[in-house]
Amino acid sequence: MEDFEARYEGYDSRVRESFSKQNLMKTIGASLTKVMAGEVDISLEFRDDLTQQHGFIHAGVVAALADTACGYAALTLMAPDAAVLTVEYKINLLSPAVGDFFIACAKVAKPGRTLTVCSADVFALKDGAKKRVATLTATMMTIRDRDGLVG
Amino acid sequence: MEDFEARYEGYDSRVRESFSKQNLMKTIGASLTKVMAGEVDISLEFRDDLTQQHGFIHAGVVAALADTACGYAALTLMAPDAAVLTVEYKINLLSPAVGDFFIACAKVAKPGRTLTVCSADVFALKDGAKKRVATLTATMMTIRDRDGLVG
Amino acid sequence: MEDFEARYEGYDSRVRESFSKQNLMKTIGASLTKVMAGEVDISLEFRDDLTQQHGFIHAGVVAALADTACGYAALTLMAPDAAVLTVEYKINLLSPAVGDFFIACAKVAKPGRTLTVCSADVFALKDGAKKRVATLTATMMTIRDRDGLVG
Amino acid sequence: MEDFEARYEGYDSRVRESFSKQNLMKTIGASLTKVMAGEVDISLEFRDDLTQQHGFIHAGVVAALADTACGYAALTLMAPDAAVLTVEYKINLLSPAVGDFFIACAKVAKPGRTLTVCSADVFALKDGAKKRVATLTATMMTIRDRDGLVG
Repeated sequence: MEDFEARYEGYDSRVRESFSKQNLMKTIGASLTKVMAGEVDISLEFRDDLTQQHGFIHAGVVAALADTACGYAALTLMAPDAAVLTVEYKINLLSPAVGDFFIACAKVAKPGRTLTVCSADVFALKDGAKKRVATLTATMMTIRDRDGLVG
Repeated sequence: MEDFEARYEGYDSRVRESFSKQNLMKTIGASLTKVMAGEVDISLEFRDDLTQQHGFIHAGVVAALADTACGYAALTLMAPDAAVLTVEYKINLLSPAVGDFFIACAKVAKPGRTLTVCSADVFALKDGAKKRVATLTATMMTIRDRDGLVG
Repeated sequence: MEDFEARYEGYDSRVRESFSKQNLMKTIGASLTKVMAGEVDISLEFRDDLTQQHGFIHAGVVAALADTACGYAALTLMAPDAAVLTVEYKINLLSPAVGDFFIACAKVAKPGRTLTVCSADVFALKDGAKKRVATLTATMMTIRDRDGLVG
Repeated sequence: MEDFEARYEGYDSRVRESFSKQNLMKTIGASLTKVMAGEVDISLEFRDDLTQQHGFIHAGVVAALADTACGYAALTLMAPDAAVLTVEYKINLLSPAVGDFFIACAKVAKPGRTLTVCSADVFALKDGAKKRVATLTATMMTIRDRDGLVG
């Protein structure tokens, strides 16, 4: 894995500020637990109101954590006035999302001027054991000069 | 598009019962608005607590609607004692999810004994206009003989 | 499905000229069998030197047909001096590619200034019957101002 | 990355035998350059007859290498009488496939009784430098009890 360099200081507070505006992340109780150049983690405690019909955390929540972490991993490498939008992602659900705590770990795979490719793994923690439950690859787009779109 | 035949009567109430156990769907306020053999729609009204940082409905919610609709479209064609799990999906976000009302329309593309491939489109309705905001393809798996997994 | 309008006359001959430079298409014996604004078909006769270990047409060939058809479907809607590159695609292989003749039918799902999303289905024809063997969604990118990249 | 254990000795010769029956791999001149439990590499020298319109190696070839490597990585962990089929894959093309030599490196991400998830990276080598040009995730299926399908 390559190491990346942020384009400016303060990318960290910018990601945190943008994340704090993501109402869905508040609604599901997710938090930003790592922000580095090209790498972002988002964590979530199990909650019964986020499950699917078998009592596992819903794939939509797993994907939202991983996609959001990828978006912010990409944003850490963008210019300060750019915004990020998800173009597409693909997720493989490796195991049912059973656990007490979940963490989505995203990394930039290939940064680019217009498009940035990221990958993320989502892990479930249960009784001290860590299990990968999903893997995702995403394409993120740098948006510039669009009113109101920053972060 | 092919037409499909359900394997038993009552698939409709079974899908509705399973959906009612999806706590995430309750949490986000989604509802099942169509259940036919091989086709399921799920709808959602805009809510401010489901947005991302730019005020659009979060991609995670869009994907959760589409993925869930695909899972139930697949389930309509499965045996009554089977359960359905998502193996993988890929979503292309075609436009920001701006609107008052959202509807994910899923269809089975290829049913199978073990795997069923589905596709879904998600539309946003705003001021009477309907716009496709996302398209998704998913692989669903038939689960049998696993304790507690039905629906 | 929407209908699209080409941005200039002559997109047809431009696609044909670009296709004729695709050595891989020559190598596998594929031909361009439909070029319309936003829609391209590519066809292939079965050949024993394109198979995988079970004697089916290799998924790589199926994907190459579909991806190439998507790229040219996107190109029909681009400016005359633009080039097209595939950003990503995802393919679901619905049935083994058994047949005498194969046709990949691609359509633009959402054109855009920078990114164009396309989808394609690949059909196998055998003894007069037509079967869908694969479905693909792809993101294509418009490339401008890069020396030597046209078409 | 986990380490995997093969289910029987001789998986290596089995993969090599199956690969030798892949006519497409012969047609494009690919060779199997690593076979270990859960890991397979496939290599290719640049050839002008495998290019797309800009002179790069065609994405279809890049994908075929990666998909095939994933299939065999999965097969190393399957029972001796099983066959492997690709269910789906998604590829992100990170850079144009420019180089003298290409290598697809596949690993099993999650083995399973029915489904095995794999990932692969494809690298281009040019003038001694190695560049990742594509990344792929695939779902492989174990096929049993189907006449004629082994390997």
